[in-house]
Amino acid sequence: MPQGCAPFSSAEYDRRIAKTRAAMAQAGLDAIFVTDPSNQAWLTGYDGWSFYVHQGVILRMDGEPVWWGRSMDALGGLRTCWMSADSIHGYADHYVQSTVRHPMQDLAGHVKRLGLETARIGVEMENYYYSAKAHAVLTEELPGATLVDATALVNWQRLVKSEEEIGFIRKAARISEKIVQVAIDRAEPGVRKNDVVADIMHAGITGVDDIWGDYPAIVPLTPSGLDATAAHLTWDGAPMKQGEATFFELSGCYRRYHAPLCRTVFLGTPPQEVLEAEKAQLEGIEAGLEAARAGNRTADIANAFVRVLNKYGIERNGRCGYPIGLSYPPDWGERTASIRSEDETVLEPGMTFHFMPALWMDTWGLETTETILISETGPAEAVCKMERKLFVKP
Amino acid sequence: MPQGCAPFSSAEYDRRIAKTRAAMAQAGLDAIFVTDPSNQAWLTGYDGWSFYVHQGVILRMDGEPVWWGRSMDALGGLRTCWMSADSIHGYADHYVQSTVRHPMQDLAGHVKRLGLETARIGVEMENYYYSAKAHAVLTEELPGATLVDATALVNWQRLVKSEEEIGFIRKAARISEKIVQVAIDRAEPGVRKNDVVADIMHAGITGVDDIWGDYPAIVPLTPSGLDATAAHLTWDGAPMKQGEATFFELSGCYRRYHAPLCRTVFLGTPPQEVLEAEKAQLEGIEAGLEAARAGNRTADIANAFVRVLNKYGIERNGRCGYPIGLSYPPDWGERTASIRSEDETVLEPGMTFHFMPALWMDTWGLETTETILISETGPAEAVCKMERKLFVKP
Repeated sequence: MPQGCAPFSSAEYDRRIAKTRAAMAQAGLDAIFVTDPSNQAWLTGYDGWSFYVHQGVILRMDGEPVWWGRSMDALGGLRTCWMSADSIHGYADHYVQSTVRHPMQDLAGHVKRLGLETARIGVEMENYYYSAKAHAVLTEELPGATLVDATALVNWQRLVKSEEEIGFIRKAARISEKIVQVAIDRAEPGVRKNDVVADIMHAGITGVDDIWGDYPAIVPLTPSGLDATAAHLTWDGAPMKQGEATFFELSGCYRRYHAPLCRTVFLGTPPQEVLEAEKAQLEGIEAGLEAARAGNRTADIANAFVRVLNKYGIERNGRCGYPIGLSYPPDWGERTASIRSEDETVLEPGMTFHFMPALWMDTWGLETTETILISETGPAEAVCKMERKLFVKP
Repeated sequence: MPQGCAPFSSAEYDRRIAKTRAAMAQAGLDAIFVTDPSNQAWLTGYDGWSFYVHQGVILRMDGEPVWWGRSMDALGGLRTCWMSADSIHGYADHYVQSTVRHPMQDLAGHVKRLGLETARIGVEMENYYYSAKAHAVLTEELPGATLVDATALVNWQRLVKSEEEIGFIRKAARISEKIVQVAIDRAEPGVRKNDVVADIMHAGITGVDDIWGDYPAIVPLTPSGLDATAAHLTWDGAPMKQGEATFFELSGCYRRYHAPLCRTVFLGTPPQEVLEAEKAQLEGIEAGLEAARAGNRTADIANAFVRVLNKYGIERNGRCGYPIGLSYPPDWGERTASIRSEDETVLEPGMTFHFMPALWMDTWGLETTETILISETGPAEAVCKMERKLFVKP
């Protein structure tokens, strides 16, 4: 079977595993069992839409990572992971969504086979793909082992990107620029929102030249008018209307790497308060980018942005950004640091964030955002090259 | 605020809640807290891509359901749920993906406010959106309550569809027919797979006439050749090749309702073993549909299908179907009954399944599937109207 499908070099996977093992050692762990599909892919290359059944990767302090999942997906493991076939294991189909068996019973057998019966094993307690039931069954099946919460242990290792990863994010950014332009071009009064989304998706999956488009971890969020006061509504078949702002929260995706980019389109003449908010938002973004320097903290970005908003009399609480890179549904964020005033993460070159200084007001919403890369020196780079403004179509 | 955005009639929501409460009474529960986005939408109409943060619905034995989630998504609740604003609650943004706070601390406050401090409360232990950590925190915050595993309690109530729901599934089926046809038409040697997927997505979101397309809960699965031996690989930018079979596992989606439909395209002249498998598969599907009658069991469908395969010398284990309808990523199945020989669920009119008699062989895969509706009398109806065969493009 081909072992060359994983998208990165051996050196890159070696780097990741060494970094992860250092964190494991620091946490006093003999092994981790990771279920986050992004962590699985980051360590092994595994890629498939099979995370709706139980699967994961066991990483010990030596040896190859072990990928474990449903039998039919173990075949996918052979096609996409870099490890040898000996390190890929499947469980029988009668475990799948069974009311009488649980896949963690099978996993426990592998844990024992690997000599981890009495080990300290890190598990991702706070993850979509590690259910309360999975933890209960695994705990019961491994009475001699100690299961320790290692949520985000791997995610934190992903925070600083390698040159190879930044290359992927830059490719995703080319797609992001294209699809935001499509959204701006297609938005017109009377055009059904789903038709605009259809064109966005088509452009995103077609990609740019040989940069083919993968599926983003979040579908296009494209609410208009009052719907844009809520952050996460999707689309319907209603026609777009004169006098409404629509924000487009989009990301291109290249081999699971993202570069989110949002712009807002106003059809007609924006009210004065929207124009004033735009001015505040753009100045706030500039201030945020200036503050997004190696050695500063995530909080500095948030504070710089909010300080400008306050100057303009706008109150804003809540997060204004999160790290991005490799991801699977339902979230393209990495779920580690946050750009918010209480977060003290020190910025390092190679970190990438979705700087998300959106404004959701009482009767409208305005999203203008950037994927940013922390540089060696100077302010952060906006990775997508797209004019930063409210796009007005009179 | 509009309370008319939820897609179904009041009578339909009343029916659902009454049915759910009967099941709660039988399980001796005072309340349930459901986190499955499909269950939330089924009970309240809530619709948004916000399930990547903690949210859910509390249903007691009387009163409106209570929707609870992140503050910015509570605004989405006001836009999409049928309940009054008093029944929609948001938690502060500093709970989101925090390393020092957990949203379940906020939820516990609502549970107490609703008089459920010492209640027996059902939770969905086996769900993507109820993490091991969420359960641990909620348990700790509610020492007087008894948290009981109520996984799939609501899902089971969704098994028999109402006429209104069947109407939605039929609309999704029109989209499924269209996108499978697009896949068949576009598949040619030399065409990049992502370009085919771009056209599939475009057609799916555009929809059919006024049936606008929503996002399916699973992205197009479109593997070719050896990749089609694995069930859940997605696409890349490689051109399609002469001499390979490609299966297209697709579903249209109308307001979150699905009607999955798979067909396989062979570019070139199929080998004899593929043609023989096709023959066995088609005859097996006919036998399965014949067995899929009200009063029979899910196992009867699986056994009828496998009996035909065995006659042709083909071994097949594993599930060959599951109920479908309303769903959110990462799975369009309902995770209750399965079409497999050990499942004894009695078929009733109005049940809808994805009958999934796919064959994943050593060097190729063949998927020909149907969304089926159990009828009052006679065999099941294939809801999508699409020629059932291996599509050969010489």
